[in-house]
Parts: sequence; structure tokens; C-alpha cells
Amino acid sequence: MKKSFSIIAIVFSVSISIFAQRAPRLSSPDVHKDHSVTFRYYAPKAQKVMLHGEFLAEAIPMNKDTSGVWTITVPPVKPDIYPYFFSEDNTQVADPNNTYIFANERFKRSIVDVPGDEPLIHSLQNVPHGKIHYRYYQSSTLDTTRQLLIYTPPGFDQQGKKKYPVLYLIHGGSDTEETWTKVGNANFIADNLIAQGKAEPMIIVMPYGNVRPKPMEDFTPDVINDIIPFIESNYPVIKDAQHRGVAGFSVGGGQTLNIGLTNTDKFAYICSYAPFTATPEFQKNFTNWSPDADKINKQLKLFTISVGTEDFLYESVKGNLAMFDEKKIKVEPIIVSGGHTWMNCKLFLATSLQQIFK
Amino acid sequence: MKKSFSIIAIVFSVSISIFAQRAPRLSSPDVHKDHSVTFRYYAPKAQKVMLHGEFLAEAIPMNKDTSGVWTITVPPVKPDIYPYFFSEDNTQVADPNNTYIFANERFKRSIVDVPGDEPLIHSLQNVPHGKIHYRYYQSSTLDTTRQLLIYTPPGFDQQGKKKYPVLYLIHGGSDTEETWTKVGNANFIADNLIAQGKAEPMIIVMPYGNVRPKPMEDFTPDVINDIIPFIESNYPVIKDAQHRGVAGFSVGGGQTLNIGLTNTDKFAYICSYAPFTATPEFQKNFTNWSPDADKINKQLKLFTISVGTEDFLYESVKGNLAMFDEKKIKVEPIIVSGGHTWMNCKLFLATSLQQIFK
Repeated sequence: MKKSFSIIAIVFSVSISIFAQRAPRLSSPDVHKDHSVTFRYYAPKAQKVMLHGEFLAEAIPMNKDTSGVWTITVPPVKPDIYPYFFSEDNTQVADPNNTYIFANERFKRSIVDVPGDEPLIHSLQNVPHGKIHYRYYQSSTLDTTRQLLIYTPPGFDQQGKKKYPVLYLIHGGSDTEETWTKVGNANFIADNLIAQGKAEPMIIVMPYGNVRPKPMEDFTPDVINDIIPFIESNYPVIKDAQHRGVAGFSVGGGQTLNIGLTNTDKFAYICSYAPFTATPEFQKNFTNWSPDADKINKQLKLFTISVGTEDFLYESVKGNLAMFDEKKIKVEPIIVSGGHTWMNCKLFLATSLQQIFK
Repeated sequence: MKKSFSIIAIVFSVSISIFAQRAPRLSSPDVHKDHSVTFRYYAPKAQKVMLHGEFLAEAIPMNKDTSGVWTITVPPVKPDIYPYFFSEDNTQVADPNNTYIFANERFKRSIVDVPGDEPLIHSLQNVPHGKIHYRYYQSSTLDTTRQLLIYTPPGFDQQGKKKYPVLYLIHGGSDTEETWTKVGNANFIADNLIAQGKAEPMIIVMPYGNVRPKPMEDFTPDVINDIIPFIESNYPVIKDAQHRGVAGFSVGGGQTLNIGLTNTDKFAYICSYAPFTATPEFQKNFTNWSPDADKINKQLKLFTISVGTEDFLYESVKGNLAMFDEKKIKVEPIIVSGGHTWMNCKLFLATSLQQIFK
């Protein structure tokens, strides 16, 4: 025992010299069985460190020990996956000791997963797992090569006889093509619902919805003319509207309405989550819109708009719903509590996956 | 024109109110044609902001303008992919405006890609692209479900007649299973070398090498008893040593030596990059090692150890090379300039992919 201990001591001292420039490794976040969570952050020179998290009504101060480590334990929180970050004096930082990071273009936040006593629908469970493919497609619309993510369900067989329906699933405003899996656990939600027989086995395509420097509305032809043909020529999918859906959150919820409702011959399922619709494309499509409501209502097997009552877009979404009502377009509102959050996104997606392709 | 302009103005003001709590969107990094790069960071209250980058000998100060944006343009740098971060007073931060982040457990750094005038071997080029699969396997060794990444080459057919060789590729000490693709562009390196006919089409498996809280050496049985069987039962691969390789960087380079050299009946190709070998497992395997050198030299078709002369492990690696020489094990040293960096990792991998499975 003594010998092995001395070997470990040598390793430790070597490791320290390697990483001398780095802060100490801390365990953060530590999720406890009672759903309380301890966060730790090393900042020996900071005057003030605060914890900001979507499980908190407001930021709370952390407490410094003599070694320069700031700590706070928050009381039990509702099991879910939450974004959080620290502020060290004036600077916002992701948790250096947490690998899981919010895929986003404009901020760096960490993710904490507080598991339920019973497994939540978005959790990694002991069921057959689908794959996520990271792939590249050539966009003639945008004249560039772009990455997209494709979920294939358990048992998927590229060359098999079975053909699948496809959901096109779009992220929020400054998110990326990875946000639906990295923050929204879309793959686990699908795995679990398919295992429970509550969702049809389907392919879920997660494109990158930001087309800068091109104008925002160019994403619609990118989906229609580039992404759908790429998927349909590379995956065993059923190529009709009855087996094609589009869904998205926030800016992606607005894109969902633009893409879906101007292409009801191509999408029988439209699921818009907390849509942001103050865009030129939405105004162009819907300000003086005179739809053939009967035809559209026949084409659409499902059209839902979901939102939380504390979402800052709640009033805007009520306006959207009123507009579609006024145009006689049948839309199912899904109104829940909560804000403009990825906690609600997961709920919305889990709801949609049980409704579509049936 | 006037009308569309006013619509854009409305959108802009709405967007501002949505994101009021966020810093302004900045373009950072801006890589210029002459390979100079401009970095921008918003920190109106900071006293000092520095840029730290692996293209710099030391951190350099950034300059603040009246709007609170700190900027610096660095002179042309050698085209490559580099990690960098900012320090705002005492705090290290990744670039909030840069989506590309170093996949790591202990720090948050950003990535800047400075393209070459001629495309570099790790760049996205107009060639057929493989896929990266994100999958889960059940580890009986570690008693948990773990994620791993699998690169399949262009034209890969899951159910086809063609069977592929497999390279098991391991990340560095605090990296993750994503670091070889997100920082090392392993997939593009393989795409490009396969397109040029310089590498054999192969499957590359990128597992997660960290097994905490289990002892570090448990990764070896995880690879042998869990990962290899998972791959071989789910992918069309050739199941012999001549079509199996293992490679890795730093801590993963040490794991490569442990896994490979104790299993020369299973791996004919061992490629270790800047190995960190001050570990109990390495000491246990090699301190009093009495190998049958003739047998091992016959089994191994390739055994390389790569390192840069400025790597802090250079002397340690020279010691490793001397030890293998002393034991009469044939090893090819690949000594280049540069340090313990992912710039060198890409070079090492590109070299190995042209040597293996031939």
C-alpha cells in the first residue's frame, strides 16, 4: 500500500507542474440527492462572485473561503436541465469545471442537469438509443457548405426497407445546430418516447438557422431547396407532406411559421414554440395574407403554437394566435407556465413528438 | 426601399429589447486575408483586458474604445487552428461572440481558424465528407452508459459488403470525446487524406478517456472489453490486429502505450503523441517490463511516438524512446518543432493516417 501511495504522490506532483497555470480542479456543479446543488468557482482575487441560474429568481452571492474558492449551495430545485453562469466582479463566465456548455453564438453558459426521482423524459435512460449524425451539406441558396445534425432512431437502417417520417427542428436566435441536442436533449426525448411507444420512430433534422451575412429570410429556401433534398437523397425517408414536419423555438419558431405556412403542400405538421415574429419575412408573409383557409386546414394535420405565460413573447404569441384565428386557420394553442426557456422547449418538443406522424 | 428599411429598424429595436441584458453582438474573431486577426470584447467596466493565444509568445493588452469595446489586431500568424481566450482583469473568459469552443473539462477557451492561402489538410474542403456519429455504449467495466464519437468515411455503407479498419483515437488529459473533432478537425483531416488517396478509408472511434471516479487504468479494460466489442457488433469492421490501431495525445498518448503495448495481439498500429507517462498504469506496465521484443516487433506494423522539441514533455518522451530502445522494441520517433499543442496534434494525426492500414 505504501508503495502505491508514493507512486500516486509522484503523479500528483508531476500533474501540478503540468497544469501550474491552471486553476485547481473543483467539483462543480455537485447535484445532491435532495435536488439541492453546490456550485464552486476559484477566484482568489475577486471582490464579489454571484451565481446566475434559470432556477433562480435572481442572482445570488457566493461565499469565499481562505483558499480563494467561492461556493454556494442552492436549496432543492425542480428537476430539469438549467443554464447558469457565474459573474466574477463585472465579468460573466461559464463554469470552468463543467464540460457541459450551452451551444450559443453570443454567450458562454453552463448547463446543470438535476435528475428527477423518477427519470424525466429528457434523461439518459436504459432504452435503445438513436444516433446523432454530424454532416455537411452544400447550400446552393447560401453558396456555402454548412453543418447539420440528424437524429436517426434506434434500429435505423440506412439501406433497409423501412422509410421514416422527418421532423425539421430549428433552434433559437443565437443558438446553433447543436443546441437542440446539447441543451434540449432532443435525442433522449425521442429515444424515450419511441421506447414507450408514444412517438413514431422518426428522423429529426437539426439545421443551423442563422444565415448571416445573407438576409434572414434566405433560410426558408435553404430548407426547401437544399436541406430537404439533401436529406431525401441520403436517408430512407417518406417524401410527402404527411410525413414531414417543421418545429422550432423563438426565432426558429418564427422561421417554422414562415417555412411551414408558405409550404403547406410540403409540411402537414407545424409546431411553433414561443415564436419571435417581428421579422421582415413574417411581415411580408402574413401582414396582408389572404389564405385559402379551408385548403390549408385540410392540408395541415397539426398546427400548434406553444408558449409559457411568463414568456416575454407571450403577448406577441397571443397576437399571432388571434391573427391565425381571424384568418380562419385552425391552430392549437399550447399554453403552459414558465418563460422563454429551454426548460419549456423540452416540454414543447416532448408534446409535439407524441402528436406528429400519427 | 424606404419601407423595407423601416421594417428592419423595427426589428432591430425589438431585438434590442429582447437581448437588453446581453452584451452587444461583436464580430470576433475577424480573420483577415493577410492572416492578421482582429479580436473584440465588450467590457465597459474592466481596467485591463488581455488577449492570450497559442499564436502568441505571451499575452498582449487590448485597447478600449469609448463604447467599452476592447480590440486588438495581431499581425499575420501562421495559418492553423489556435486556442485563445481573454482575461478581463483577473478573470479568464472564452470569446462570447465566438461559437467555436475548446471541448474541455477544466477551462473554457475559444478557437480561431486561420485558413491557409492553399487549403490546409485540416480544412473543410470540397471533397466527399464522412459522418460523425454521436452514440452511447454501455460500459460493463465502468458500470455506466458513456458517449463516444465515431467517424465513418465518405461512401460508408452500414450494411454494405465493404469492411473497414478502425483507429481508436484518444484525447488529452482534461479534454473530452469531442476534442479530436472540435479542436483537432480529425474528420476533415481524414476526409481530405482519403480524397487525395493518401489514407485508407477507415472508421475512427473517439472515446472518452476519463473514467473518474474509477482509477485511471480502468480505461484500458473499457476499451478492450466494452468499446471494441460495441464497435465490432455495430459497424462493418475487420476484426483483426492488422486492421486495428490506437492513437492518442498527452494523457491519451500514455493510454495509447498502455492499451497498445499490452495488447499487441489486438493492435498492429500504435501511434502515441506527446505521451504523458507519469502514471501508475505506465509504471506498472513498463518499470520491470521484460517483453518478447522479437514477437512484439513482428506483431506491430507501426509504432510511432511523436513530440515537439518545445513540448514540456520532450525530455520525458526522450526517456520513453530510450526505454523502448533498451527493451529492443522498434519505435519510430517523429520529432517536430512546437509545443504540447493541438496544432501539433493535427500534424501528428495527419502523419499517422497516411501510415496506417497499408
